[in-house]
Amino acid sequence: MRTLTTIFTYSFVLLLVACQPTEQSNNTNPETKEWSIALHGGAGAVSKDMPEERQQAYMESLEEALTIGAEILENGGSALDAIEKTVNYLEDNELYNAGKGAVFTSEGTNELDAAIMDGSNLNAGAVTGVTTVKNPISLARKVMTESRHVFFAAEGAETFADQVDVERVDPEYFYTESRYRSLQRALEREKQESSNLLETPEEKAWKYGTVGAVAKDKDGNLAAATSTGGMTNKKFGRVGDVPIIGSGTYANDQVAVSATGWGEKIMLSVSAHTLAAHYKYEGNDLKASMNYLVNEVLNPGDAGFIAVDKYGVFSMRTNTGSMFRAAIDSEGNKDVGIWED
Amino acid sequence: MRTLTTIFTYSFVLLLVACQPTEQSNNTNPETKEWSIALHGGAGAVSKDMPEERQQAYMESLEEALTIGAEILENGGSALDAIEKTVNYLEDNELYNAGKGAVFTSEGTNELDAAIMDGSNLNAGAVTGVTTVKNPISLARKVMTESRHVFFAAEGAETFADQVDVERVDPEYFYTESRYRSLQRALEREKQESSNLLETPEEKAWKYGTVGAVAKDKDGNLAAATSTGGMTNKKFGRVGDVPIIGSGTYANDQVAVSATGWGEKIMLSVSAHTLAAHYKYEGNDLKASMNYLVNEVLNPGDAGFIAVDKYGVFSMRTNTGSMFRAAIDSEGNKDVGIWED
Repeated sequence: MRTLTTIFTYSFVLLLVACQPTEQSNNTNPETKEWSIALHGGAGAVSKDMPEERQQAYMESLEEALTIGAEILENGGSALDAIEKTVNYLEDNELYNAGKGAVFTSEGTNELDAAIMDGSNLNAGAVTGVTTVKNPISLARKVMTESRHVFFAAEGAETFADQVDVERVDPEYFYTESRYRSLQRALEREKQESSNLLETPEEKAWKYGTVGAVAKDKDGNLAAATSTGGMTNKKFGRVGDVPIIGSGTYANDQVAVSATGWGEKIMLSVSAHTLAAHYKYEGNDLKASMNYLVNEVLNPGDAGFIAVDKYGVFSMRTNTGSMFRAAIDSEGNKDVGIWED
Repeated sequence: MRTLTTIFTYSFVLLLVACQPTEQSNNTNPETKEWSIALHGGAGAVSKDMPEERQQAYMESLEEALTIGAEILENGGSALDAIEKTVNYLEDNELYNAGKGAVFTSEGTNELDAAIMDGSNLNAGAVTGVTTVKNPISLARKVMTESRHVFFAAEGAETFADQVDVERVDPEYFYTESRYRSLQRALEREKQESSNLLETPEEKAWKYGTVGAVAKDKDGNLAAATSTGGMTNKKFGRVGDVPIIGSGTYANDQVAVSATGWGEKIMLSVSAHTLAAHYKYEGNDLKASMNYLVNEVLNPGDAGFIAVDKYGVFSMRTNTGSMFRAAIDSEGNKDVGIWED
């Protein structure tokens, strides 16, 4: 009888130890940060030979953008306000391919895309192909809060902008000398190539410049925002990953994610939602889910991501070589950088 | 010594039995079907008082559409061919809100959306806001195979259609008396309401008619396709869930999914990818994943879905009251119906 009891006790303990689901073992249960914010200014393959002065300009603007969001969060503001204002700053800065600094389409126009998502209620707003809206992320937020819809395109989105008092500008506003020269170079290259529609090696050239931000606020709410000018020399009203909820932008009550890089690859792997699903089912470990997305789902050179989880942990990763990025949390953990390593 | 051996043997067997991951316990390991196809003609809340003649017209067209896809698959054709031709039939049939039978926008135009995804290589194509393309699903397939991009909008998509020889028609082609009357009624209702932009109870009226198909072929490849005329009286270039990869349409090497219903709800829950993620992480049980999506992720009245998994199991579910639907597999399992129960 004693032996039988021993067997059962022993077996029971062994079961308890051995049958812990494996996902739990990765859960580091990090101390929850009061607030946290991360932002990106685009993933790509920026040369390390970038002139010192330009490097400094990027680093300073990343710091400034970060401060805007961090101050809002520190003062008890919402994650939505923090990411909108942070992205507004980046949209207004010529260095980045969003808002003012948007790249040119093949027709010499600027068509902007943006999306924002509120993780607290799973609502979202998105716009594509707008040509006269100064801050597309602010229009996306109005689509989320002031319409019954999620996603508006082109002229329709601009008609809506007028109804909700979002600032419109003359398309000339988006003219910048350097972006225009980029288009001319792209068109020149195109002339010299055979005129097929399939992928060309030059695609690497446009993997820069989308901007985005993700945050967790003191109320525990998460939010994500992404804004872009798309790709230089884009055609056929091409829509990228940015305004696609679940691909370039996604937030729920567990994670907030914003993507940058090769839009088609990000879309086909439903990247932001893939991270969220992995996080949910595989143990609430943001770093592990980010590694899975960047190393196993996507291929080297495809994309970069920023994310914040419900604990206020932030993560920023790219497999493209570089990603303009910055993050900070309420405990002073901070990271600002450009290159992958 | 003998007792110790017994303890270890006993414990080991107990561990083997008890530590099977719970996801396996739901896995019915169904016999794999050679091929399988499911299609829908829209989810909504069709009255059971529908005239007998109209009911018969729907049932006959569902059978005909199903036969087209089933014959292709039985003859060894690809899942992509089967779903494209099936959806083409539904696009050409006035009964459904896609192609010929597309509903009208608030401006009295017809703007069509479509997407297709090849689960074997995770490639996809999508179009939104096309007004002159007879079969938008065929254009979406060309976007997938003949361009370096995934998603084209409006006039740009139509310029691309000309380059890849996809048939365009005069916008008049999409004029149907019944859809035009629907728009007039919607505009009339709108005049009588306060003119805010937020949700109105009339939304239920447009939850009909998107079409879609999913299939597994003899080579084991999965594919999904969805095509729609959107919602009656839509404004601001509204884009719904249909062309959003991961929301209205998704396929990988495990499942293929097509959605229909309240587009915004389908988008905000990234529905098709949510089903795929649940299937992947929670035990490869299509019925369980479909129940999770329809009962736990979405709310009653939101949407319906069709799906096929890697075993050739099909599933069709709606929480709206009705969904025009049909499915068949290589073993003769078949389901054709309209109402939820």
